[in-house]
Amino acid sequence: MTQFGSPSLGRVGRLQSGRSPVTLTGLTGMPLVQPGDDLGRLIVRAAVENDYSFADGDVVVVAAVIVSKAEDRFMDLREMTPSAHARELADVTGKDPRLVEAVLRESEEVSRAAPGVLIVRHRLGFTSAVAGIDHSNVGEIEDVVLLLPVDPDGSARAIRDDIRRLSGAEVGVIVSDTHGRPFRIGNVGVAIGVAGLQPVVDARGSRDLFGRELVATLIPIADQLATAACLVSGETDEGIPVVIARGVLTSGEGSARELIRPAEQDLYR
Amino acid sequence: MTQFGSPSLGRVGRLQSGRSPVTLTGLTGMPLVQPGDDLGRLIVRAAVENDYSFADGDVVVVAAVIVSKAEDRFMDLREMTPSAHARELADVTGKDPRLVEAVLRESEEVSRAAPGVLIVRHRLGFTSAVAGIDHSNVGEIEDVVLLLPVDPDGSARAIRDDIRRLSGAEVGVIVSDTHGRPFRIGNVGVAIGVAGLQPVVDARGSRDLFGRELVATLIPIADQLATAACLVSGETDEGIPVVIARGVLTSGEGSARELIRPAEQDLYR
Repeated sequence: MTQFGSPSLGRVGRLQSGRSPVTLTGLTGMPLVQPGDDLGRLIVRAAVENDYSFADGDVVVVAAVIVSKAEDRFMDLREMTPSAHARELADVTGKDPRLVEAVLRESEEVSRAAPGVLIVRHRLGFTSAVAGIDHSNVGEIEDVVLLLPVDPDGSARAIRDDIRRLSGAEVGVIVSDTHGRPFRIGNVGVAIGVAGLQPVVDARGSRDLFGRELVATLIPIADQLATAACLVSGETDEGIPVVIARGVLTSGEGSARELIRPAEQDLYR
Repeated sequence: MTQFGSPSLGRVGRLQSGRSPVTLTGLTGMPLVQPGDDLGRLIVRAAVENDYSFADGDVVVVAAVIVSKAEDRFMDLREMTPSAHARELADVTGKDPRLVEAVLRESEEVSRAAPGVLIVRHRLGFTSAVAGIDHSNVGEIEDVVLLLPVDPDGSARAIRDDIRRLSGAEVGVIVSDTHGRPFRIGNVGVAIGVAGLQPVVDARGSRDLFGRELVATLIPIADQLATAACLVSGETDEGIPVVIARGVLTSGEGSARELIRPAEQDLYR
């Protein structure tokens, strides 16, 4: 008899198999990624150098910044001509009008503009600051920024396919970014691209220890994995953009868009 | 030369020491916790049964539900007399007026009330649904609910002190709950009580690979640990209310209140 026991496990079983711990292994020594690099190949090579052997069921969490670099998502702000709307928002936020123009081109909707703040709904569906455009760790030139990958689910699939081809292992892949959060301090990892796992596990229909149905249990396992990977990668650390989780039971397929709450169902708004 | 490299690490070093992986170990076989139980003692005993030896720097993530049970935070709704305000909110939300009364007594402010929805700012400072009051896995009686611990930081300290006394190890302890989130689907673990670690690591002042200062990097490491623990505990699984993280560099002391963003600084509202 256990604490959270569930006589009927419904569609979700234990997330951990047996008593072996979940491990989060960071791959050190990844080279500085360049446009055109084959990321799957770089990851498999780094794994070899780290004495890490991929196994079926591993989930490889890859920081979006290196995916963007490999896919040459650099943007030179000197080539941006801000629209009137961008100039207006730049006045409100105090941000570079060319950066605001880049943000608008990456976004579907402006959620919040205030001094120092520009929060948008990204074309990929999620809500975040400055459309996930990265200015740090991009390069020596102040005017160059890095956009998120065009299709992070597709990027994740390509990496998964490469790892399967080169290592033989059926892994899941998450392309992760870090987002700020309402109500709470600091950034946490989220999944913006997914391949080889179901990003949200539906545990509705499960029953609790006393037989009552659990009505609202959707487990965002891809986000939980992306956040757990932060424990290894850090945000300002010496550079571990690839973290591999082992021991987490995953299955299925899906898109990172499943992690996004439709605005009309957002209880907090 | 690495991807996220930081010539000046500022106040935060690597979050992972060397190349050893971070491990998340669930303690299986915890007994059903009863009011008055000494949780620290139960945890140390379960660790022994799991062949787990505590080491300095381990972080023990304990589900709030077992802390509340040990502290006898059960509440019988049949003893609740709803106020006029509670009855009004019960009409709006469709919830049991006695439950709403319990929620109001645990809260400082109602953030949102709508059919099926009652989101409040808890007396502990965070914003969550129905003040974290748990109805599942509480007991056979439908009318009994479980409130959050009175002082989760204090609960964490007591558990940490017990583990130190019984095992000799200097561990960190997190009392965790799961919260829904704006914008994204599903619940994730958050830290509502902390002892023996600094819950937010301030990496401001660190510089990126190209020497630019990172201005907005607060790492909510206690929340990241609480979310990572979900990978082992699940939410409806067979019951792993205690998960131990090893290999995450932590230091200092603090209160889980540091994880809460003051309303006037909430960029998303």
